[in-house]
Parts: sequence; structure tokens; C-alpha cells
Amino acid sequence: MPEFKPPRPGEQRIDLPTRADAGLHFIGRIRSAYPTPADCPKNTLERTEQATIEVDPPYDQGLAGIEGFSHLIALYWLDRSRRDLIVQHPSHRPEPAGVFSLRSPVRPNPIGLAVVEILSREGNKIHIRAIDCADGTPLLDLKPYLASSDSVADARRP
Amino acid sequence: MPEFKPPRPGEQRIDLPTRADAGLHFIGRIRSAYPTPADCPKNTLERTEQATIEVDPPYDQGLAGIEGFSHLIALYWLDRSRRDLIVQHPSHRPEPAGVFSLRSPVRPNPIGLAVVEILSREGNKIHIRAIDCADGTPLLDLKPYLASSDSVADARRP
Repeated sequence: MPEFKPPRPGEQRIDLPTRADAGLHFIGRIRSAYPTPADCPKNTLERTEQATIEVDPPYDQGLAGIEGFSHLIALYWLDRSRRDLIVQHPSHRPEPAGVFSLRSPVRPNPIGLAVVEILSREGNKIHIRAIDCADGTPLLDLKPYLASSDSVADARRP
Repeated sequence: MPEFKPPRPGEQRIDLPTRADAGLHFIGRIRSAYPTPADCPKNTLERTEQATIEVDPPYDQGLAGIEGFSHLIALYWLDRSRRDLIVQHPSHRPEPAGVFSLRSPVRPNPIGLAVVEILSREGNKIHIRAIDCADGTPLLDLKPYLASSDSVADARRP
């Protein structure tokens, strides 16, 4: 495990269980323009660095039929994130906030989520418009984006 | 492990690795009106059965600040799902399809995802409008829904 910085004032850490409740399989990797987590943008709305999702065999058989969708939800494992900060104070926020009101990569289960636009598919590679994670990030799942249930254009935030 | 039915014609199964690449911690449970996965609705758009997300201590400290959001993204572990069907033939589809073009609970990493509307919060319990999973489903993560990056109202599907 890498060494992590001590929590900032107002941040709160917890002890995580030593034993896992369930196990994940890495099914591929995300190739991005960002070598390390420190290089990653906070959001990708204005970014133009394309990225590629590589799905390893035998999981790539599961890509059959994705061509008809314009967008996917990608879930990935933020393998270089600490997991123990339950209250965090990001530099762009006036006050500390609970992890479940933040999209921070630091979470008890560091699963990253991005809605990605498909540009093209080439075998087991899906070229996408942009993503916020570091090169080599392990892939966990891809789901078709369904506007009927996933899009809430008028969702409120503070 | 429960016994699973044999694949239907056109379905494809794979052997999953025996060893996990990463481990998850269950951080709470989802309380719903559906006792088993067989009772769960295919989608919740027209459903009115309320549900509750219970976040266990010490993870509940991470809820600070969620009040300002109208919607959350819930990630949960579909612990009663098989993981080995990479091509599936759901009864409502004319042809078999790859798992990554389906929102089936059967996936190599059976992580369920729902965009949920917050009705109220009562300590470590969040009452929500509806969700599609069975009572007792383990919770993995909650993320604030951000319309700017999560809402794609004109996303296309086949």
C-alpha cells in the first residue's frame, strides 16, 4: 500500500474491515491520456482527450449488441485510491463534506462511474470521447445508458 | 452457491477466475418491497413501492451533506445473481445479446446501479421513491447525481 497523507483538519477517517465481503474480477483496462491520478481532470465536460476501453477475453463476448447505443455507463476500480476518509475537505469546497455527497475517488468502495459517449468500436476496444481516470485503470462493468431511467435533467444539487 | 439453470439456446457461459482481483465492503442494506430477485420489477418508472437505503455505522458519517441533492446514484451488490453468462437471451428480446448491452443482474461483476430520488433522510436511513432490487441487497456506494455529467436526455438506444 502507498503511504497516504494525514487527514486535513475537519476530515474524518475510519478503520475498514480487514476481510472483504465480496470479490471483483477485473475485465479489462481503461486507456487514457492521464498517466497518474494526479493528472486526471476533476470533470471531463470540457476535455477533448479521447480514451479507449479495452475489454479482455473472454469478457469481450459480452460486447455483442452495444453498437446501437450512443452512451455507456462505465464502472472502474480506482486502484490507487485510499478508502478510509469518510468525511473529506476538497480544496474547492468551503467546508468538509461526507463522502456520499462527493464524487471523490476516495471512498470505502472506490468504484468510479462515468457516462461515456461511444465514438467507435474496434473488436474488443471501444473508443470514447472522454473519461476522468488514469491510464491502466481496471474495468469492472459496462452498462447501456438508458435515458428513460438514467437521465434526470432537472436533478437538484446544493 | 445456489444451483443455476442451464443456459438457454444461444446463451454463452464463461469460466470465471477462482481468485478475486479486489475486495468489496458492504456498507449497508437496501430495504425494498420485493422479498426475492424473482419479485423485482424490470424497471421502476411506474412503480410506487417506496424503499429505504440503510447505511451502517461508521459509514453513515459519510452522509453529511447529501440533503442538498434531489437524486443519488446507488451501487449495490446483486448477491443472489450468477456471474457466468456473458451472452444472454432475456425473454423480452428477439435475439441473444451481450451482457454489456443489457441491464441484467447477471454480470461478471454483479453491481446494480439505480438513479434514485430522495424523499427524506432519517439519521442513517434514506427514504427513496423506488428501486428495482430485492430486500436486503447489500449497499456498496452512494454518489450525488450531477445532471451536468450524468444526464444525457438524448442518448440513443436501438
